[in-house]
Amino acid sequence: MNSEQQAALAARYGKDAIPPAGPWNAVIAELLAHRSIRAYRPDPLPANTLETLVAAAQSAATSSNMQTWSVVAVTDPATKAVMAEVANGQKHIEQCPLFLVFLADLSRNERLAAEEGTTLEGLPYLETFLVAALDAALAAQNAVVAAESLGLSTVYIGALRNDVVRVARALDLPPGVMGVFGLCIGYEDPARRAEVKPRLPQPAVLHHERYDASGEPAHRATYDAALSDFSIRNEMSATRWTDRVLARWGKIRSLHGRDELKAALRQLGFPLR
Amino acid sequence: MNSEQQAALAARYGKDAIPPAGPWNAVIAELLAHRSIRAYRPDPLPANTLETLVAAAQSAATSSNMQTWSVVAVTDPATKAVMAEVANGQKHIEQCPLFLVFLADLSRNERLAAEEGTTLEGLPYLETFLVAALDAALAAQNAVVAAESLGLSTVYIGALRNDVVRVARALDLPPGVMGVFGLCIGYEDPARRAEVKPRLPQPAVLHHERYDASGEPAHRATYDAALSDFSIRNEMSATRWTDRVLARWGKIRSLHGRDELKAALRQLGFPLR
Repeated sequence: MNSEQQAALAARYGKDAIPPAGPWNAVIAELLAHRSIRAYRPDPLPANTLETLVAAAQSAATSSNMQTWSVVAVTDPATKAVMAEVANGQKHIEQCPLFLVFLADLSRNERLAAEEGTTLEGLPYLETFLVAALDAALAAQNAVVAAESLGLSTVYIGALRNDVVRVARALDLPPGVMGVFGLCIGYEDPARRAEVKPRLPQPAVLHHERYDASGEPAHRATYDAALSDFSIRNEMSATRWTDRVLARWGKIRSLHGRDELKAALRQLGFPLR
Repeated sequence: MNSEQQAALAARYGKDAIPPAGPWNAVIAELLAHRSIRAYRPDPLPANTLETLVAAAQSAATSSNMQTWSVVAVTDPATKAVMAEVANGQKHIEQCPLFLVFLADLSRNERLAAEEGTTLEGLPYLETFLVAALDAALAAQNAVVAAESLGLSTVYIGALRNDVVRVARALDLPPGVMGVFGLCIGYEDPARRAEVKPRLPQPAVLHHERYDASGEPAHRATYDAALSDFSIRNEMSATRWTDRVLARWGKIRSLHGRDELKAALRQLGFPLR
C-alpha cells in the first residue's frame, strides 16, 4: 500500500478499520476523497461546464436505454429561494452558482407514445417509477464525479422531497415528472473546509456470497468512535452514529413531510401500482 | 474543442447532435466512454479489487449519512446461476468473475435501534425505501467508475427485480433488505466489442430554469435516426428508439413480473407507507 492510498483509506474508514488495499489510481483517489460541501464561493463556473456535466450524466447506464430522467439547471435566485425554503432553509442552495434538480421523468416516454397514437401500459407501476428514480441517481453521480474532477464541489439535496408538489410547480414539471433530489455545484468556500467523513467499516456493508450481520455490533462500536472523533474535529460536539440514526428516523416528524411522499407522487401522476 | 473531445461527444450524441464543448479532462473522457458490456472473459480480477470498488462505493454521498445500502459479492457459480435465471437467462451473470448485488438495506438501522431498545418510526415509509434504493445507486455508480478506471467493464442487471423474493432467499437477506440491481464486473470479451451507445440530444434532457418539452419531437427524430444507425452497425437490425420504448413498456407482460414489485417489497419487509 502506498502512503497516499493508506492516508485515503484511513480518512474514509478511520485508522482502526482500514480495509485491505487493492488496485489504486488517480480516479479512485478522487472518488475516495469525496466530501459533501455546504458552503460555496459565488464564483461562476467556466463556460459550458453545465453541458460537460450533463454529457457525463447522460453517459451513465440507463435501464433498457429508456432514459427516464431529466434535469433542470436553476440559476434564477427566486427559484433557488423556493428550493431552499422547501429544503428547510439550506443556504448553500442560494449560494452555489448552479443548482441542478434531477428528475424522475416518465413524461417523455408518455408523450412519445401519445404522438405514436398509443399508450404505455407499463408506466403506472412502482417498478417504473423506481427505474426513473434510479436512472436519475446514476446520472447525477456521474455528474458529481465529473464536477469533482474539475475542482468543483457538490452536495445532494434530498430535502427537495419535503414538498415535491411545490418543487414541481416552481419548475413547471408536467405530470409524470418528480424532483428526486437537488445538487449544489460550485467552488468550496475555503474558510469552511470540511474533512472526508468516515463511513462504516467495510465488513459492515460488504457481504460475501450470503448476507451475514454477525460481526455488526463490533463494527458499529468502531464506527461510533470514529464518527465521534470526526464530529469533535469538525463540529465540536461528539455524536455517535447510533445517535444520529435514532435522531433521523426515530420519530415520524423528523421526516419533515416526507411521510406524505406517496400521496404527493400520486398527485404528480405516478400511480405507483 | 480538441479532437478527442469532439470524437467522444460525437460517439455519445451522434454527429448531428454534438452539444457545446465545456471543460475536459481524462476523468470526463472515461465517463463519456462508458459502455455496458454483456460478454466477459473468465479472467479473475487483481487481488483486493473488490475492496477497492467497495471503498469507492462507500465514498459516494449517502442521505444524512444513514448508509442504507449493502452489497453481496457473488462468485459461487450456483448462486450466479440462480441470479441468471431470475434475469431471464442473461449469460454474462455466469460469465463474469464478480457479480455484485446492491441492496437497499434498512435492516442495519433497524437492528441498531433494537439493540438500543427502541424502534425507528420513520422506516416503514416509501420515502425511506426510496432513500435506500438511491443510496445503493449512488454507491454502485461510484463502483462502476472505479472499475472502468481499472480497465474493467460492467453491466447493471435490473432484471433481478423480476423476482426480488427469490433473490432475497438465495442471498439470505433479512427483512428490510432488497436486491435493487446486480452488477457484472470483469474483462470485456474483445471478440464482442460494443460501441458507445448514443443518447438523446442534450436539449431533450437538460432544461433551463423551467421544464420545456417544446423541442422534443425534433430531438426524438434526430435520436431515432442515430439509434437506428447504431443498431445497424452493432446488431444488424435497424430499430428506432421510439420502437424500443413502445416494446419495453407498451404491454404489462414486458415488465416480466415487475408489475408485482409492490407486493414483493411488502413481503420483504418494506410497508411502503
